[in-house]
Amino acid sequence: MKEFYDLADFSVEEIDALIALANRLQRKPDPQALAGKVLSLLFLSPSLRTLASFQAAMVRLGGGAFVISPDMSIHGIETRPGIVMDGMAAEHIREAVPVIASYGDAMGIRAFAERRSLDDDLADREYNALRDLVSTPLINMESAIGHPCQSLADWKTLDELGVPRQGGRFVLSWAYHPRALPLAVPAATVQMAAMRGMDVTVLRPEGFEMPASIMDRAAQAAAAAGGSVRETDDRNEALDGAHVIYAKSWSSTRHYGDKVADGDLRRDFDDWCVDDPWFDTAAPDCRFMHCLPVRRGVVVADRVLDGPRSVVIQEAQNRMYAQMAVLHEMLGNGGL
Amino acid sequence: MKEFYDLADFSVEEIDALIALANRLQRKPDPQALAGKVLSLLFLSPSLRTLASFQAAMVRLGGGAFVISPDMSIHGIETRPGIVMDGMAAEHIREAVPVIASYGDAMGIRAFAERRSLDDDLADREYNALRDLVSTPLINMESAIGHPCQSLADWKTLDELGVPRQGGRFVLSWAYHPRALPLAVPAATVQMAAMRGMDVTVLRPEGFEMPASIMDRAAQAAAAAGGSVRETDDRNEALDGAHVIYAKSWSSTRHYGDKVADGDLRRDFDDWCVDDPWFDTAAPDCRFMHCLPVRRGVVVADRVLDGPRSVVIQEAQNRMYAQMAVLHEMLGNGGL
Amino acid sequence: MKEFYDLADFSVEEIDALIALANRLQRKPDPQALAGKVLSLLFLSPSLRTLASFQAAMVRLGGGAFVISPDMSIHGIETRPGIVMDGMAAEHIREAVPVIASYGDAMGIRAFAERRSLDDDLADREYNALRDLVSTPLINMESAIGHPCQSLADWKTLDELGVPRQGGRFVLSWAYHPRALPLAVPAATVQMAAMRGMDVTVLRPEGFEMPASIMDRAAQAAAAAGGSVRETDDRNEALDGAHVIYAKSWSSTRHYGDKVADGDLRRDFDDWCVDDPWFDTAAPDCRFMHCLPVRRGVVVADRVLDGPRSVVIQEAQNRMYAQMAVLHEMLGNGGL
Repeated sequence: MKEFYDLADFSVEEIDALIALANRLQRKPDPQALAGKVLSLLFLSPSLRTLASFQAAMVRLGGGAFVISPDMSIHGIETRPGIVMDGMAAEHIREAVPVIASYGDAMGIRAFAERRSLDDDLADREYNALRDLVSTPLINMESAIGHPCQSLADWKTLDELGVPRQGGRFVLSWAYHPRALPLAVPAATVQMAAMRGMDVTVLRPEGFEMPASIMDRAAQAAAAAGGSVRETDDRNEALDGAHVIYAKSWSSTRHYGDKVADGDLRRDFDDWCVDDPWFDTAAPDCRFMHCLPVRRGVVVADRVLDGPRSVVIQEAQNRMYAQMAVLHEMLGNGGL
Repeated sequence: MKEFYDLADFSVEEIDALIALANRLQRKPDPQALAGKVLSLLFLSPSLRTLASFQAAMVRLGGGAFVISPDMSIHGIETRPGIVMDGMAAEHIREAVPVIASYGDAMGIRAFAERRSLDDDLADREYNALRDLVSTPLINMESAIGHPCQSLADWKTLDELGVPRQGGRFVLSWAYHPRALPLAVPAATVQMAAMRGMDVTVLRPEGFEMPASIMDRAAQAAAAAGGSVRETDDRNEALDGAHVIYAKSWSSTRHYGDKVADGDLRRDFDDWCVDDPWFDTAAPDCRFMHCLPVRRGVVVADRVLDGPRSVVIQEAQNRMYAQMAVLHEMLGNGGL
Repeated sequence: MKEFYDLADFSVEEIDALIALANRLQRKPDPQALAGKVLSLLFLSPSLRTLASFQAAMVRLGGGAFVISPDMSIHGIETRPGIVMDGMAAEHIREAVPVIASYGDAMGIRAFAERRSLDDDLADREYNALRDLVSTPLINMESAIGHPCQSLADWKTLDELGVPRQGGRFVLSWAYHPRALPLAVPAATVQMAAMRGMDVTVLRPEGFEMPASIMDRAAQAAAAAGGSVRETDDRNEALDGAHVIYAKSWSSTRHYGDKVADGDLRRDFDDWCVDDPWFDTAAPDCRFMHCLPVRRGVVVADRVLDGPRSVVIQEAQNRMYAQMAVLHEMLGNGGL
């Protein structure tokens, strides 16, 4: 595997094989698999799960990782092309990225969403500019529009929970959050659920529509896998019979890049906090999912998050096993 | 071993076995013992020795560690229960801790002393709240009232120095410091010295008494081990014949949680700086011990710290070997 | 090897052996060579390449590293000798360094250039004060006047590029930079190039002369190796027939430690930015070298840095392989 950028780059069979490998590595450690192998980790945005789980994954496979993030005691990093660097920054990303990559057998990059232009973020311009600087295998540790590690972990979690593929009712619900967050997780999640063959509903207020290109792509994947994709602002309709409520906040796509207008709009929806009544018409064993970090009492009520429906810790732990499978496939000798 | 929380949870025989294991690992490395094993390290307070020595310990045993501390480029972590998270913090400790734990085979937590209520700190409420969130084996890397890794290392150091158990005169002396520091090290040290069977004197000014519950517990341990425990503010009486002067500053227990009153009181004792004359009536080879970090010229004079009596670097190095024994016991296949 | 402080401490034969070992480790990994071995890394100045490449090097050899830098969540570190520590700093470098050293089998230190007194920096007083506190093998990860890891990597790069030893024309050129930078890299580079037997020219404006002691030492090395060393401010003369233009900015030696006077002087030379015309009279395949980080459009034009002459990424990658050889020699069982 040369790149792990987007779950959509893989077939359902390949994803199933990755998850089977993740399950095998979870049951039966393989602490020599990547002996002497190095994973370079570059974080341009904050991280906890990704930071920890990739380091842990490499140790479990017998290798190791190093971390570079801008909060470290390193020289400031300039990202603008063509600039005369007579200010504070002492190093340009055009040198920093290939140098960091050159020390590893594979590299993980957490890019960031500019959130200025929806077209730029949908095209993942930041990530793609960095990708062109890396010659080793590359893992997308979250870009403006993608988060395949989260999606692979969530797929594994859904399998473990026995959530049906065809006929499984998966609701991705927008939730209130004081800040305008990236589209990466919701866009990746709707695609993941569609590829898994579920009946996917995106529940969100007006003004927070998923971008059409994301929905179109998911609809194609759903059609191929025996599922469906729809979008609504009707909570009752959306939640009826749901097997999963996957909560996530994201930016207004109507006012993308306009913080003031986004803020004015989202304030009207501060009651979009997932709570027990949301599960009234759902399937009896309906699960609550979230990629974390999650704001308690804002995105979800404590009683849901602390209750038996919540599988957020399982999702987070599966990040490590999913990533072990990707790393094993990228850097191991055997292959699937 | 499921938890390494307090030296008092172990018998003298178990402690001796841990130290024997530490000595063996010091003499004869075992670089495959924990191959593929991961230690999760969470620091809620600053650290140098603990941060470095646990990482080094895991590498020496063939595994690895990852570190999470709040100064990293992670989302702010909320610790208050039941709060509506509409402020700066994006993640709650109730998710962060189990997630971090889920990536490791064991976890180390450095909690912090609130230093608001003596009862709360004696009950180690902060640490215990975190412990309930962790299902892996857990190591106390310093809590409000305990520091077992330091104590195990100090016991090992005392053995190496040939300080007698029964009949050994161990003086834990308060020393001046501009800030009101936690009780963890002094409380753990008096218990360690008592369990080791020494005659233990806590030397401190009025107003800085050890909490009665700490002294009572130590007295019981001393009685069982053939030693004794007393407390005094009389330096001459305390230091007479001492084999060890172990310096440490701590908060006023009379004014616990009241920084102003504590500061007013401690200023009168800024001459409590361990210096050569303190050793005049001590045993000829009396040692100076301190857990580090130590303020030169404040807690101890340079000539003592730089002289032959000081064993502070040996104590610090023994942190690593003591922790290797704990980790080997927790995560290794063999056991003691 | 007990210390890797200065390339001048080694013979050309020893350097060739280190590079041969680096080449072997690059071609054929040896992931068990340093199993269970620990490298302690202390950064007192910012770093990216050194931070990443030493960690990666240890993983590739089967060991591991830990990092301590003052930006971490550690207690402030005092460096002044004999001070009464009643201020902010809670720990003195006299304890911190031996403790950190005690956890590793070898240690790397990045010291800093005080840039107050040229004599002090030429004598490397900061580094030498730290060296006296370390009993393990020690690696100079850049001091006030030396950077042997960079020099060993650059030597390897020159070999790979086929730049001739005797007869090779090596130009170390000062370049403009808004800040007064240390002398470490230029001093190490002129020595490296002289030891390699090349004809070395230091090109710099008046006021930025290399210190005489550096030039004298390089001249002796050049004489022994069949090369030569000269210094000039005449760009045409310097660049004629050059095989390598190695750019680096450094402090004015005339106004060393005087930021204002240095700034006034260097502003006149802000056109010292390596650009295509610099290569007009150079050898046809003349290379551009720089140790990184480099300021684009200030030290070097983008078209040079992004063009085929630039080997800066190769230099950076060779840092890792060069350091693997040093570590293997220091900590491995076999030796060269």
